[in-house]
Amino acid sequence: MALPEPIEHLISLLKRFPGVGEKSARRMAFYVLQQGAGYGEELAQAVLSMNSRLTTCEKCGNLTELQPCPICSDPLRDRSLLCVTETIEDLVSIEHSGLYNGLYFVLGMSLSPLEDRESLPENVLHRLLRRFEEYPIREVIIATNPKIEGDMTFYALLEALRDVPVKKSRLAYGLPVGGSIEFADRVTLHAALESRQEVRE
Amino acid sequence: MALPEPIEHLISLLKRFPGVGEKSARRMAFYVLQQGAGYGEELAQAVLSMNSRLTTCEKCGNLTELQPCPICSDPLRDRSLLCVTETIEDLVSIEHSGLYNGLYFVLGMSLSPLEDRESLPENVLHRLLRRFEEYPIREVIIATNPKIEGDMTFYALLEALRDVPVKKSRLAYGLPVGGSIEFADRVTLHAALESRQEVRE
Repeated sequence: MALPEPIEHLISLLKRFPGVGEKSARRMAFYVLQQGAGYGEELAQAVLSMNSRLTTCEKCGNLTELQPCPICSDPLRDRSLLCVTETIEDLVSIEHSGLYNGLYFVLGMSLSPLEDRESLPENVLHRLLRRFEEYPIREVIIATNPKIEGDMTFYALLEALRDVPVKKSRLAYGLPVGGSIEFADRVTLHAALESRQEVRE
Repeated sequence: MALPEPIEHLISLLKRFPGVGEKSARRMAFYVLQQGAGYGEELAQAVLSMNSRLTTCEKCGNLTELQPCPICSDPLRDRSLLCVTETIEDLVSIEHSGLYNGLYFVLGMSLSPLEDRESLPENVLHRLLRRFEEYPIREVIIATNPKIEGDMTFYALLEALRDVPVKKSRLAYGLPVGGSIEFADRVTLHAALESRQEVRE
C-alpha cells in the first residue's frame, strides 16, 4: 500500500537528506504528524526563515545573518592566521573544537576529477588572494579533508599560493584517513591542529 | 561557536525526530540550506499540507484523506478478517508486506504500566466492539508488538473480546523478540502472518 499522497510527498523530500533512508524518513514523517500542528508549523517556519535570513559571508564564506560574519568582524581573533576549509560544515567543526582563534576562508567546493572539477574556480582564487592584501597573514592552515578530493584541493591551493610569501601548513594526519572533518571528535581535531605541519617547498 | 540562530533553531527541531542526534540534525539543516530556496519551500509546504490534509479514519484509525479510508472502503478486502494493531506505523508495515487482505483496527496506543496506561480506554474499546456489529467477523488477528507493552495489550484485548464469539489469533513469534513490527523485514512478517496461532480460551 502506498501511504496517502501528502505523507508520501513529505517522505520523498525527507529521504533526500544525507544518511536518511526510506524507513527513517517514514518515521520522521509520522513523528511530524503525531506532534500535531504546532510542531509542523514551527518546523515549516524554521526552514523558510533559515533560508531567507542566512547568507554566506562575503569575506570568508561562513554562514551569517550579518556582513561580514561575526568571526570576520571579531576584533579579538588573530588576523594573522587564515584557515582554508572545503565546506562551511568543516569550518563549524573546527570552530566547535574551540582550539582555533584565527580567521577562515571557505572554498565552498573541493576538486573532484570524477565530477569534472579539476581546478579551483578563478573567482574563488581571486577572493582568496585578496585576503592576503587586507591583513598581514603569517600562516595559512590548509584544512582540507584527508581524502583524495581533499588532497587534490590541498595541492591545488599550494600551487595557487606559491608566490604568496607566508608559511603554509596542513592539518596533521591525526584525522582518520578516509574520514571527514565534520565527523571528527574534539580530541582528534585537537591532535590534528596541534601537530599541523609546515609545508616546505 | 554557536551557529546563527535561524539554523540552530531548525537543528533543535530536527533533533527531536526519533533517531536523529545533534550531528545528523546539523547535516540535515545544512542540506536544506545547500539545496536553496526551492527545496526548503517544498519541504515547508509538504509539512503544512500533510498536517492539514491528513486525518485518521473514523472506522479503523488509519491515516487518510477520505472518510472512511481507502482500505475500509475497498470492496475487494476480506471483511471477515480484522487485524488489530497498536499504531498506524504497524498497520503500514503489515499492509506493505502485501500478505494481508482483511480490515484493520488501530488502537493508537498500547498498555504501559511505566507510563500509567494500565487499561484500554473505554472509547477505544467501544469503537472496537462496534466493528463486530457491522460485518460478520470470522477472525481477529491481534498484531501487537513482541514486547512487554505489546503482550500486556494483547491480554487486555483478549479479555475485552472474551464474550465476542470469533476466532482470535496473534502473530507468531517469528518476530524477533524485543523488536518492533515497524522495522520487521518482509520475510519475517510473512513467517509471522503465516504461522499466526489461534488462541484457545
